[in-house]
Amino acid sequence: MIAQIADRYLGALDAKMREIVDSAPQAPQFNVMLRYPFGWVDEHDRSYNQPTGKRIRPTLLLLCAEAVGGDFQTALPAAAAVEILHNFSLVHDDIQDDSDTRHGRPTVWMLWNRANAINVGDALFSLAFTALATLQDSGVPPAVTLKCWTVFNWTCLELTRGQHLDMSFERQPLVSVDAYISMIRGKSAALIAACAQMGALIGAHDETTAEHFASFGLNLGIAFQIHDDILGIWGDEVLTGKSAATDIISRKKSLPVLYGLSQSEALTALYQREAFTDADVTEAVRLLDEAGAQTYARDIEVRYYEQAMADLRAANPQGAAAQGLLGLTEALFQRQH
Amino acid sequence: MIAQIADRYLGALDAKMREIVDSAPQAPQFNVMLRYPFGWVDEHDRSYNQPTGKRIRPTLLLLCAEAVGGDFQTALPAAAAVEILHNFSLVHDDIQDDSDTRHGRPTVWMLWNRANAINVGDALFSLAFTALATLQDSGVPPAVTLKCWTVFNWTCLELTRGQHLDMSFERQPLVSVDAYISMIRGKSAALIAACAQMGALIGAHDETTAEHFASFGLNLGIAFQIHDDILGIWGDEVLTGKSAATDIISRKKSLPVLYGLSQSEALTALYQREAFTDADVTEAVRLLDEAGAQTYARDIEVRYYEQAMADLRAANPQGAAAQGLLGLTEALFQRQH
Repeated sequence: MIAQIADRYLGALDAKMREIVDSAPQAPQFNVMLRYPFGWVDEHDRSYNQPTGKRIRPTLLLLCAEAVGGDFQTALPAAAAVEILHNFSLVHDDIQDDSDTRHGRPTVWMLWNRANAINVGDALFSLAFTALATLQDSGVPPAVTLKCWTVFNWTCLELTRGQHLDMSFERQPLVSVDAYISMIRGKSAALIAACAQMGALIGAHDETTAEHFASFGLNLGIAFQIHDDILGIWGDEVLTGKSAATDIISRKKSLPVLYGLSQSEALTALYQREAFTDADVTEAVRLLDEAGAQTYARDIEVRYYEQAMADLRAANPQGAAAQGLLGLTEALFQRQH
Repeated sequence: MIAQIADRYLGALDAKMREIVDSAPQAPQFNVMLRYPFGWVDEHDRSYNQPTGKRIRPTLLLLCAEAVGGDFQTALPAAAAVEILHNFSLVHDDIQDDSDTRHGRPTVWMLWNRANAINVGDALFSLAFTALATLQDSGVPPAVTLKCWTVFNWTCLELTRGQHLDMSFERQPLVSVDAYISMIRGKSAALIAACAQMGALIGAHDETTAEHFASFGLNLGIAFQIHDDILGIWGDEVLTGKSAATDIISRKKSLPVLYGLSQSEALTALYQREAFTDADVTEAVRLLDEAGAQTYARDIEVRYYEQAMADLRAANPQGAAAQGLLGLTEALFQRQH
């Protein structure tokens, strides 16, 4: 369903992203490292062509541009920018989390070491701004381009605030739900809010309408992350492509876990162990189920999802893109992976 | 001399930088980590107030703005942006190079670990763009603000290209002078060129004049880096605050070293050792002297310095700021630390 909605844009989006990434200054190996995260090439620069990720963020941005009466082509620079920014954050995340694979391939730091991966992330970060700045050549008025830049800058800062909190939670025994929501607001939802807001800004140049879209994106983004948290424990291994309970193994302080820790002394005791055996993981999931952690997280997800739907109605999207937005929102809520 | 020239701007520059850094979203510890690299606070957020670095880049930018008839206050957002960007690159550099001190203090990663330091760098990167975007509120026309953004984006990409080459040189036995100049053009000179170019753009809105300033900055930046390379081997320990021959110990492929390696088989053999004893370091410096590496590097520095002076004459700076620019350029060429 998500793939069907994204399909209309994928060719043009991919072309724009490649144009930007290939506009980086040339140096041996450097440009291969920049192309690799997008799934265009393997580590030897041989064609690979298995796009990584579902391109949800740029799809949302382009749908919002159309839903306010704009042309999606005009918004392609911003769509490329958000997807490149998302990939920047994954490259640095993978170093920070010591993750050795992503999308079934070795991560950038595993292939080229950490020092190079930091630099690859920095270059992708620069390319995200480079992409956004090409709104100037896309027929977007200077004032709208500058407004998008301001939104984007704040989004980048929110990403780093969220990342800071996420890392700090690892060392905290108890994390409140409010603190957790504040963290995912920065780490996940801010960029999704920016997609909706920038799409609307570029499509209709109206800041009030764009604020409704921003609010829709923020609530959708929070629901989206909580959905991910649930899949990270109870997701079907075959569908997610990750081992089930992967977030238990990595001891991620996701919403179900922090709720479980606040409810279950047995779970808290378990989480004090140095390392988890397979039996510990099974027991942790059982204790989470016993504490009602899945239901608890699902209820909060639904609350944000319903708020997102209310925001979307207030934003009053039009035409075929409005159907696409509804379809995408529902698909994100129902997805099994 | 540099301090005297910078002095006029330092108060206003510092205020602008603090305003931007303190505008970051708030989270416990996060904002301390962002203030620390500028020397405003220690790691416990206690006032420290020993500004790190000489603020050469923003001073150059503000001088160029005035030398074309502009008001330096208008250019403060760009001046803050280049200094914040410079600090971002140092935070990531220190992780990449495993450096444990900078300006006589522990580096960010030493205090808060590598994962946090990556994130601090990313946040400073975002803040550099945040600073630049406030040109909008400074009376700069939108077209000039957008042009500065384009220059800044390319500068960031050049920084990452230069950093990539610098790291790749560590693994290469022979590095050509051309490859080396290309590396420092990205890693050091691009940002200095951007300072001169953006200063002139903001001061006079004239792209042709700004190109002359850009060329001046680029050549000055190359000479500046070669000067650093010479100080890194033959600098006076008391004045530089680093142990003499620090670049020998770290086996940096600086210009004198790569010239020495191309001329001296004994030096090449020495550089194949796993670790250097104190006697090895002394011997390396002796072999570099024997090969005439200092004279060689100095000659190339002078060539770029003279080109920079010719560019500056072509740029035709005016008034007291023209004297300041000449003074700064000479001071950079003569500095002992």
